[in-house]
Order: sequence, then structure tokens, then C-alpha cells
Amino acid sequence: MISYAAALEKILSEAKPYPKEIVTINEALGRVLAAEIFADRDYPPFHRSAMDGFAISSKDYAENQLYPYQRELSAGASLNLEPNEKTIRIMTGAPVPDGFDVVIKIEDTILSESNGQKQVTFSIKDVKPWQNIAKQGEDLKKGDLVLSIGLKIGTSEISVLASLGKEKLTVVKPPKIHIISTGNEVVPINTSPLPFQIRDSNSYTITSILSKYKIQPELVTHVPDSESEITNQIQQGLEADILILSGGVSMGSLDLVPSILQKLGVELIFHKTAIKPGKPIWFGKRKNTIVFGMPGNPFSVQTCSRIFLEPFLRKSFGQNQIPSYKLPYSTTKQKKGSLTEFFPVRLETTNNDKTYLSPLSFNGSGDVRAGVTSDGLAIFPTEVSSIQKDDLLEFLPW
Amino acid sequence: MISYAAALEKILSEAKPYPKEIVTINEALGRVLAAEIFADRDYPPFHRSAMDGFAISSKDYAENQLYPYQRELSAGASLNLEPNEKTIRIMTGAPVPDGFDVVIKIEDTILSESNGQKQVTFSIKDVKPWQNIAKQGEDLKKGDLVLSIGLKIGTSEISVLASLGKEKLTVVKPPKIHIISTGNEVVPINTSPLPFQIRDSNSYTITSILSKYKIQPELVTHVPDSESEITNQIQQGLEADILILSGGVSMGSLDLVPSILQKLGVELIFHKTAIKPGKPIWFGKRKNTIVFGMPGNPFSVQTCSRIFLEPFLRKSFGQNQIPSYKLPYSTTKQKKGSLTEFFPVRLETTNNDKTYLSPLSFNGSGDVRAGVTSDGLAIFPTEVSSIQKDDLLEFLPW
Repeated sequence: MISYAAALEKILSEAKPYPKEIVTINEALGRVLAAEIFADRDYPPFHRSAMDGFAISSKDYAENQLYPYQRELSAGASLNLEPNEKTIRIMTGAPVPDGFDVVIKIEDTILSESNGQKQVTFSIKDVKPWQNIAKQGEDLKKGDLVLSIGLKIGTSEISVLASLGKEKLTVVKPPKIHIISTGNEVVPINTSPLPFQIRDSNSYTITSILSKYKIQPELVTHVPDSESEITNQIQQGLEADILILSGGVSMGSLDLVPSILQKLGVELIFHKTAIKPGKPIWFGKRKNTIVFGMPGNPFSVQTCSRIFLEPFLRKSFGQNQIPSYKLPYSTTKQKKGSLTEFFPVRLETTNNDKTYLSPLSFNGSGDVRAGVTSDGLAIFPTEVSSIQKDDLLEFLPW
Repeated sequence: MISYAAALEKILSEAKPYPKEIVTINEALGRVLAAEIFADRDYPPFHRSAMDGFAISSKDYAENQLYPYQRELSAGASLNLEPNEKTIRIMTGAPVPDGFDVVIKIEDTILSESNGQKQVTFSIKDVKPWQNIAKQGEDLKKGDLVLSIGLKIGTSEISVLASLGKEKLTVVKPPKIHIISTGNEVVPINTSPLPFQIRDSNSYTITSILSKYKIQPELVTHVPDSESEITNQIQQGLEADILILSGGVSMGSLDLVPSILQKLGVELIFHKTAIKPGKPIWFGKRKNTIVFGMPGNPFSVQTCSRIFLEPFLRKSFGQNQIPSYKLPYSTTKQKKGSLTEFFPVRLETTNNDKTYLSPLSFNGSGDVRAGVTSDGLAIFPTEVSSIQKDDLLEFLPW
């Protein structure tokens, strides 16, 4: 049985880049850039006043001197200085006229009038060139690389893309995915199950995880543990880029999925890995189709999705992996055996100002409410049998 | 000028609960529960085999004894024991028949056959009652409270809601929101700006932040710095639950927003708070409409949204606030003045296994690419002028 690290490596090594498509900026949040974004001009595009106040030349500045002035300049306009025009009133966001290199903020000025002539004095002792001015190009020069391929578009990226006028964007095209849940015991969620039946939660869980990646599965379906029905459904699923199965991969006599996959020519890459929950996971491929056969327990599906499916998608999208954190554990925990264990935790910041990983009630992979109210998974490493308070654990946020 | 804490408190004290609506589970991800969810039956609903193997009674168990057996039981069916039926083959997920209380996993059995009679021996020394069985009701008892009001529905919640057969859910109805960006210098993103013009990024930024809360703004628009145009647009915006403005709240002669709001009868709750960026923020209300007047710089909008708008929405939704973390800073940083400063950071886990907050290039609130590739904001506290490496800072993830 291969280790968690080996399983992850085998999965990631199957990731291949997906094609591109073009979307509008309104559809871009959460998508992944598939083309570099360059600055269309300098940013700021001009020497921009960062304050409301007066613009002046540092060479002409003197404290408490009376400066007559005429004009004011707001954002959205520009002006050229007249001969002997020593200062102007200027607003935040306006372009500082050529010849001036300082903005004095309004709070440091005294305004007056003499015979209808407006005048101003300044109450600060010294000025420095470019004071209170955002210089042209100080954020970005025209042609600079602004956003790289593989970056997930979040709010800050939307902001800069709008500023740069990128109304249409080249992003990674999401893969075609089929989801098949299996199991005679599983009934649709809108039915009243018999005492020995349970409702189909896994297809909802997997669909919700995919929506984080803006993927709408092409087909979501359930089949009972019947050789012919599973075979037919998998045959159809093998036309997708990714086929995700839940259930049917364990040691039972009705765990038909592995043998059917192999009959259909799907190459086994690994079956079982030394993790808990999720040990029976089956992973393979046929031509361009990747197959994840996840165990049927609800928390196994959540865990396998987070630790295997999501990293695979991110690598295929050209994204960085979700950063993992090392955070101290709030209490003690024991385990037997040598599996790498994953369990749900919450973040808790205590009075002593440390952020801890704190465990939640958890009855194992079949626990129907496992993960509820959690912030992510903590990893109980293979080689460790006992965690003490304050030990640093790896934390995988959802 | 009031402090960050005082401003946040004033904003939160205006939050009032929103009405409810009903959605299907397929639309529920990211929504906030407005009704409690109770268990419709015990979970597990029966004593469920957690392994593939053999079911037996702990009283009848003996190592290396030959047990004849006839029947096997998979998930999705049930059976009643025959007189003298000492063991059955059982699969993961199947209900353990009344009379049995142990499951021996298949790896610990030896199967054989004698004169057509199937038989099994077990290779483990002792068994404990309920070994390898998830007992009926061990996760949830029928009627237990499973999910509370105010919980945001994530993947684990979708999983349990599906298991419980909750096809329709009562969630918080999102508020009606109008977004108005102002400024003569601001042009639509699909135009070529003149040298002294910039494109409208703020309405895209705010829209993308609202989408995290599954809110689609009712109206998104831009108006120039014209008294009549701003007045008309704000009048319409005051029919929404929340009116969000960007720009026009500073000290310039064309910063018309505060006076127009007050002319229209909007009660000022505060104008300016001791933060950077975002100092000129204006906050007020009229009847049932809350008004956020954000400064126009792109990073001010991102910051004010994260530190003020989002907490307001979460409180109105009945949600807990986003947990903040305390994490060590990776380097040193100085500030002048006594404002509470917010700056973009990335999480970085170093070789010594600590997760640090690491700064990004940042030219202040007008920096068009501020926040790009960041994981959230770090807070430079009011009373501190110098941060050292390893100092713990509050971290607000996006």
C-alpha cells in the first residue's frame, strides 16, 4: 500500500494543462488566468495628487509666504501652468501640472483673500520633492507583467483587471466531469429511506467542491451495485475528462468498481493508500480520462476531494497549491497504526494570542456530520502516535 | 476622528436581521441558514458494519474455530438471523443483524469449504462488543439539533443536509444593494482613457466581494461629480437596503457625496476613522437603508469592504465573524502616525515550520495592483510604531 505522499505524487504526475477559453470580467471571479496580463500604460498614468490641497514647485516653496492663486484642478481634468503661476488648488486624483512637484495638504494651509485675489500660505517648514504625489509609473510601467498565468482571479485581481481595461480574459477552460455514486443502499435525497437505506449525499458534496473551481459537472448520477448498470454508466463517464465515482471500491463482494474499470481498459495507477479516512481510494486513467474511485463514506469523499482531487485540479489549471499552514494543536490526541490520518479542526485564537487548531467531535469516516463547522483538516502524521498540546500540525483549510 | 474599533462597533450596531427565503440544496452553497436543522432519524440509522468481513456475536466468538455460514449481506438490504446461524458474511454499510454485535474484518479470516458447506475461521484472539460497527445513533439521535441558524453552508454542511434529505432550505434572503461609483476622472472599463482619466474598477471590486455572500447587486452604476446627477442616483439608491458609494467623500471641492447625503436626509453616523487606507469613509443611514461612502482609491475600497462591509453583512446574516488569526511577521516594518494600518500579506511556511505573514510590494491606497496575490490583510496596530520579526500580528484572510 503506497503512502499519502506517493499517492499524491502519482496523482499530480497525471495532471495535464487544460485548454483556454475567453470570458468577460463579470464571469472571471474564481477562474484561473491562462494568459499573462501586461500593463497597458503607466500606473499611475500621470503624477497624481494623493491629497486635497495645493500644488507648488519645491524650488518656490517658503513657509508662511503669501501665494496668490487663481485656478483649481480636480480629478478628471488637466491644465498647463501660466507664466508666473506659482500654485494651484488641487484635488486628490488630479494630475499635478508640469512644473510642480509638491502637494501641500489642505490641513497645512491658510486661505485668505485680498482685493478679490485669493491667496494661500503654508504652515509646514520644509517640503520634499514629490511629497504627497503618486509618481507616474510608480506602481506599474507600461508593458510590465502584472498577473501571471495560473493565478486564480480574486477580488484584488478583479480590481486591477478592471483598472487595466481587461473586459475579456483568457482563462483555463474547466474540464468535463461526470460524477457517479454507487451503492444499493443509496436512495435519492427526496425519498424516505427504508431503515437500512441512506440518502445520496456524495454527489452533492462533490458537486459543491467542484463549484469552488467554477466547474459544473456535465452529469451527476447514481447507479445501484449492478455489473451492467455500473458498466454502462462508466462507459459514458469515460468520455469525460474526469470521472469521479463514490462507493464500490472496498473489499466487499458488491464492490464492483475496480473490476469493471479494468475490464473497460482503465489503467490502474494505484488502489489503496495509507490514509484514514479514504484508504480504499482507486486511481487510474484511460487515454485522456482520469478516474477517481472514492470510498463511499461521506467524510472519506470530503477528505479525498480535498487532499487528492483539488490538488489535481489546481495542477491541471496551472495554479499553485493551496498554501498549508503549520499551527499549534490545542490539546492531545493519540492514534494506533501507521496511517496518515486527517481530521476536522477549527481555528481558535485564545487569550494568550495564539491561533490553535482545535478538534471537533468526529466518529470517523462514516460520521454523517463530520466536518460541519470546521475550518479544514489537520494531518496526524504517519510516524507519530501521540500529539501533545502546542505541537505544530499541518492544516489544510477547506 | 473615531478609532477603528469604535467605527466597527457603530457599523455593527446598525445590523438588523434580514428576512428568510427558501432555496433548493443545489443553490444552497455559500448561503446562511435561517432555520435550525434537526436529525430526521438516528445516524447511523442502524448498527452499520464499518468493514467488509463477518458478523458474529461476541458471546459466540472463539479464535481458530470453524464456523459454517450460508448467507451474505450487502449494504442496501437486511436480514433476520435463522436459529443457530452463528455468522454471516457482511459488507461495509450493511445493517448488522439483531443478535450480532461484532464484525471481524475480512483480512482477519480464513475461508474454506467442506462438502459444499462454506466455513470461516477467525485469526484474532479477542473481540470487543461493537467492534467495527458504527452503532445506531452514535453520530446523531433523531431530533438532535444538527445545524444552527447563522451557519454558512459549506461542503460539509451540504453533505449532511443531503444525508438528512433536506432538499429545500430556509436561508437568509440577501439584501438589495445599489453600488454607485463617482468621479469625473472615472471612465468605463471598455474605453480608452484620456491621459488624466482612469477606468472604473471599484464597482467590479465591490460586486466581486458581494458575490462571496451570494449577493447580486440590483444596480451598479457610475456618475460624474455633478450635484444633480449624484443626487438623482442616490435618491434611487436609498430605496435599496444598502447603498455603497465609492469616491467623493474626501476634502476636495468636488467631494459632494457627504453634503448630498445629508440634504437627502441620510443621518451621518461617522465620517472619517483613524485607519489607513480608508480614512475618509462616511457611514450613515436613512430609515431602513444603510449607506457606506467609501473613498475612491482601489485599495481603500478593498480594505473598507473587508473590515467594515463584510462584518456588517455577516452580522445582518446572523453569521459569526470570519475568525482572525494571530501569526508571526516575517520581517520588520515601521510606521509614523497613530492610524491603524492595513496592508496586504501572503502566508509563507518556512523551513523552520512556522507560518509567517509576509509583506507584498505596496505603494499605498492608490496602488492599482495592491493586494494582488495576497492571502489577506495584516493589521499594524495604532499604538505600535515598529514591528519586529516574529511579532504576532492579526491577520484577516480575504
